[in-house]
Amino acid sequence: MSVGIVFGSKSDKEVMKNAVIVLKEFKVEYEVHILSAHRVPERLVEVIKEMENRGVECIIAGAGLAAHLPGVIASHTVLPVIGVPIKAAIEGIDSLLSIVQMPKAIPVATVGINNSYNAGMLAVQILSLKDIELKNKLIIYRKEMKEKFIAENEENIEF
Amino acid sequence: MSVGIVFGSKSDKEVMKNAVIVLKEFKVEYEVHILSAHRVPERLVEVIKEMENRGVECIIAGAGLAAHLPGVIASHTVLPVIGVPIKAAIEGIDSLLSIVQMPKAIPVATVGINNSYNAGMLAVQILSLKDIELKNKLIIYRKEMKEKFIAENEENIEF
Amino acid sequence: MSVGIVFGSKSDKEVMKNAVIVLKEFKVEYEVHILSAHRVPERLVEVIKEMENRGVECIIAGAGLAAHLPGVIASHTVLPVIGVPIKAAIEGIDSLLSIVQMPKAIPVATVGINNSYNAGMLAVQILSLKDIELKNKLIIYRKEMKEKFIAENEENIEF
Amino acid sequence: MSVGIVFGSKSDKEVMKNAVIVLKEFKVEYEVHILSAHRVPERLVEVIKEMENRGVECIIAGAGLAAHLPGVIASHTVLPVIGVPIKAAIEGIDSLLSIVQMPKAIPVATVGINNSYNAGMLAVQILSLKDIELKNKLIIYRKEMKEKFIAENEENIEF
Amino acid sequence: MSVGIVFGSKSDKEVMKNAVIVLKEFKVEYEVHILSAHRVPERLVEVIKEMENRGVECIIAGAGLAAHLPGVIASHTVLPVIGVPIKAAIEGIDSLLSIVQMPKAIPVATVGINNSYNAGMLAVQILSLKDIELKNKLIIYRKEMKEKFIAENEENIEF
Amino acid sequence: MSVGIVFGSKSDKEVMKNAVIVLKEFKVEYEVHILSAHRVPERLVEVIKEMENRGVECIIAGAGLAAHLPGVIASHTVLPVIGVPIKAAIEGIDSLLSIVQMPKAIPVATVGINNSYNAGMLAVQILSLKDIELKNKLIIYRKEMKEKFIAENEENIEF
Amino acid sequence: MSVGIVFGSKSDKEVMKNAVIVLKEFKVEYEVHILSAHRVPERLVEVIKEMENRGVECIIAGAGLAAHLPGVIASHTVLPVIGVPIKAAIEGIDSLLSIVQMPKAIPVATVGINNSYNAGMLAVQILSLKDIELKNKLIIYRKEMKEKFIAENEENIEF
Amino acid sequence: MSVGIVFGSKSDKEVMKNAVIVLKEFKVEYEVHILSAHRVPERLVEVIKEMENRGVECIIAGAGLAAHLPGVIASHTVLPVIGVPIKAAIEGIDSLLSIVQMPKAIPVATVGINNSYNAGMLAVQILSLKDIELKNKLIIYRKEMKEKFIAENEENIEF
Repeated sequence: MSVGIVFGSKSDKEVMKNAVIVLKEFKVEYEVHILSAHRVPERLVEVIKEMENRGVECIIAGAGLAAHLPGVIASHTVLPVIGVPIKAAIEGIDSLLSIVQMPKAIPVATVGINNSYNAGMLAVQILSLKDIELKNKLIIYRKEMKEKFIAENEENIEF
Repeated sequence: MSVGIVFGSKSDKEVMKNAVIVLKEFKVEYEVHILSAHRVPERLVEVIKEMENRGVECIIAGAGLAAHLPGVIASHTVLPVIGVPIKAAIEGIDSLLSIVQMPKAIPVATVGINNSYNAGMLAVQILSLKDIELKNKLIIYRKEMKEKFIAENEENIEF
Repeated sequence: MSVGIVFGSKSDKEVMKNAVIVLKEFKVEYEVHILSAHRVPERLVEVIKEMENRGVECIIAGAGLAAHLPGVIASHTVLPVIGVPIKAAIEGIDSLLSIVQMPKAIPVATVGINNSYNAGMLAVQILSLKDIELKNKLIIYRKEMKEKFIAENEENIEF
Repeated sequence: MSVGIVFGSKSDKEVMKNAVIVLKEFKVEYEVHILSAHRVPERLVEVIKEMENRGVECIIAGAGLAAHLPGVIASHTVLPVIGVPIKAAIEGIDSLLSIVQMPKAIPVATVGINNSYNAGMLAVQILSLKDIELKNKLIIYRKEMKEKFIAENEENIEF
Repeated sequence: MSVGIVFGSKSDKEVMKNAVIVLKEFKVEYEVHILSAHRVPERLVEVIKEMENRGVECIIAGAGLAAHLPGVIASHTVLPVIGVPIKAAIEGIDSLLSIVQMPKAIPVATVGINNSYNAGMLAVQILSLKDIELKNKLIIYRKEMKEKFIAENEENIEF
Repeated sequence: MSVGIVFGSKSDKEVMKNAVIVLKEFKVEYEVHILSAHRVPERLVEVIKEMENRGVECIIAGAGLAAHLPGVIASHTVLPVIGVPIKAAIEGIDSLLSIVQMPKAIPVATVGINNSYNAGMLAVQILSLKDIELKNKLIIYRKEMKEKFIAENEENIEF
Repeated sequence: MSVGIVFGSKSDKEVMKNAVIVLKEFKVEYEVHILSAHRVPERLVEVIKEMENRGVECIIAGAGLAAHLPGVIASHTVLPVIGVPIKAAIEGIDSLLSIVQMPKAIPVATVGINNSYNAGMLAVQILSLKDIELKNKLIIYRKEMKEKFIAENEENIEF
Repeated sequence: MSVGIVFGSKSDKEVMKNAVIVLKEFKVEYEVHILSAHRVPERLVEVIKEMENRGVECIIAGAGLAAHLPGVIASHTVLPVIGVPIKAAIEGIDSLLSIVQMPKAIPVATVGINNSYNAGMLAVQILSLKDIELKNKLIIYRKEMKEKFIAENEENIEF
């Protein structure tokens, strides 16, 4: 049970690292691939198949501009694909629309612009459906998040 | 193993019915609730808990305008929540942004504007991770979709 | 007679402080809470009730991205809720739409992007309806603002 | 204790009537004026003063396009002004921005595009701060809204 | 020397027919394929290769929503690819951005929303670089267009 | 024969100075006023009348956000009013729409975002209709602009 | 003293006729030309010169999509050019931006989307600077507009 | 066989240089001109004719704001014109729409915002239709791009 993380260039690493942080925190295995839907389309298809064979169960894909990567991956697998719109121009609106507005039958589970943290969380939530231990970790994570939030913010706020 | 479908008014039924069509086609059980994050917030929290207790494993939520429903549901459960932006004003851009731009740690898996069909598909893909039969159905669905697509479009197109 | 100010993280303090500046200037009591609609939804509901019990009469809520906080507060109280869209992505358009486009019957009184100063002013204007002294202060404030504006700008402008 | 409702042309009546419906329902007195910030600016200023003299305590103003009416009214009174962006072009985005993005110190409490119902509700909520009977009506309204919502939607939804 | 025309569904025929009209007018050979980047990705790659083998020299691709078709074709050929954004949602802005904002090295020559006529014209202009007869037709077309435009519009316009 | 230049705060001087540069270059007299439609509405009306009495024939008004200043001026005079949308938020789109989308009968001649240079040019072009010397200066300006442009750019461009 | 009105096709007549209505009302002479910046660029330049020679003093140009017509005219004359963005796609935003965002030194006086009435009014206001009779008509027009507005709207408005 | 590159000011050189880099890499001849559709319209027409006479076969034109340059060039030649929207305001959306939304019959082959690299690639792809050697270079370029991409990204990515 692991997660594949795919993005198009080393320069996207900074945005995508938050997905890794989440997966590490929940001790979910992952593999990372830099692949482009447009530059290495054949290699992309190969790696999707390899990931499936290795037991990857959910793929996170981040892309900017005319962000085809998540949708192209989704067209080659029935695994859930999570899309992260990366801001590269016009505030990331091009990426968001290129990812979320997929045609009928080939969905991409889209998260917020540059929000790979939520992509990681969503992958954990999906995998937790078949892993009760992981689900419990999620419940504890939420509980601790609440406690920490309240603890950190209960002091008086000075202006 | 079932899917909860939630939306805010009977008038959204027309948009949301495609999610039901997909779940019926894949013989995935579902339950439907009309609930509003703003009008019946306490009842919404109750129903989320009830759905969890009944074994719902994935929630599809459709909403328009300042579409808070999917995000509010996501804040009360660790189940994966799929958001359907419903077009009610300014081409559905308000709904899309209100759903997809969730803050860190509470993701909503967003699909295209009015595209509840893809919400249904995504739910099936997620549930198929723990149901090999469902996964096989997905693979067959894709295969048949391809064959049907090619068959329907192989004839000459006259202009 | 006081105003509640709620926002989602310490990092929003810089934007929200102008609301406090206005309330201090008009000697209107206020209380500040850092609360999140998505991270601590139950605590949020508690604090809304506490504020009501303490005599808070108007709530200012600031939020960014899929800014649900003002709308969620509005769904739990009949006090007037003033929403401040905080710019966190795409120029704050996501926050603005997530706040202003509330469904029928649950309004949020929305001010401009990052404009918590106007949220403070609006709160004072609302409270002044039942406090003739406060209303007089407002009339004087406007009068002085005009005089100051004219005084500061009557000199010749050199280019 | 009454509400002034102002808009720029008889053609806006259809959109603005929902504000009247709310005020009638809550038995709040109101007066309606068709006035334009650009066509009859002097008359507008007169009527604002007249409304203040007659005890109007909150003004609802609806306008489309470069919707200056709410902001211009706000510049002539310290009463709370509620702005309704009326959709007349580009999906009402011009009206929304022309109303909500007011400069520092002169707020307009903006509601959703064409959503005069919420303008009426907000006016009632504001006036209820000094009228306990009105506040109780609001609490009952919310309670009944919830009960009605649940009753109407508890039946099974057929697809 | 011919042009390939590709689009994703029979429902796009109405928009795409103007490309055919232009090619017919200039007596440029063409072939039409209904193919989807997401539904039949493998078949799409095959047909691209077949078109290349048959001597297609320019490909026109029309698509709506998250319009990946032109970009995916461009990633599998060095032939010039002309993209037609088809309006299916939010005024066609999603299609436009999904087509035009291609990453470095894999261009799509994008024309206006729903403007397949211009896609046809651009294909003819490109092919005319190696066909002096076609270029002369273009020059005559422009000349006649001008004459016709002036003739049709020289009469007095009555209001 | 002179031009009035009006804007809302000293901080707008940097954007508006280009209008002054043009008027100085063409030796057109001008007067500058810092005035706000919302903060000093009565004073604004007075100054409009004073400008008319002093023979001002064209008014340039710059404003940001919900930029009402040009439209409010236009409602108090039949002189041509030129509006400069100043970028203060969301890339200046709010200012542009608040200025250009004026209702029927009260136009504002709108130029590009932050482009006060063009406001100055437009004022000169308008005034030149009744001043043949000014018109000749414009013709010479254009001629020299062309010559200068060609001279500056005729050298080889190295990459 | 007359106004030139230029637009790109007979189908724009419906939008542009309001400019003519204004000019007729003020008894300002005008001439109308259907001309395209892209289809008949040479003829356009000729007609601009002819209009200048016939004493045209202000040109109104309406165009849709990538609306170059007003800007191209402005590049060939120092007469004031008024641009009318005609809505043909994406709500007219393409036309508006193509007209208003002119580069330094070549302004187009832009009015609202489809608002040729205001283009007519602006032309009359500009011409009135050198025609005291026309200016008096404008003052009377405004006065009568106010009186008529008030008369028409003073009756009680029933809901 | 060469490419003409046209843009409006030396300040655009930084954006446009990537087109030159591509043409140099493929050893395609080019000529560069700084020309403005609005400032030197007559000279622009002359240079278009000169380029045609010198055997230029494809023109790349970059422009910002109300970016008329590519469209105006396209109206004076039947050569393929490639438009590069240069970001100068509102994230380049004005340039993109001013270039891509050309009217029927006069296309501009538009590439992404600031993406002159793709304009260069597209020009090479177009010219390769009549130059088998150039086409082979393109095929090798793609092949090497793939190999290089894979080689550079096959190492483990550390987070």
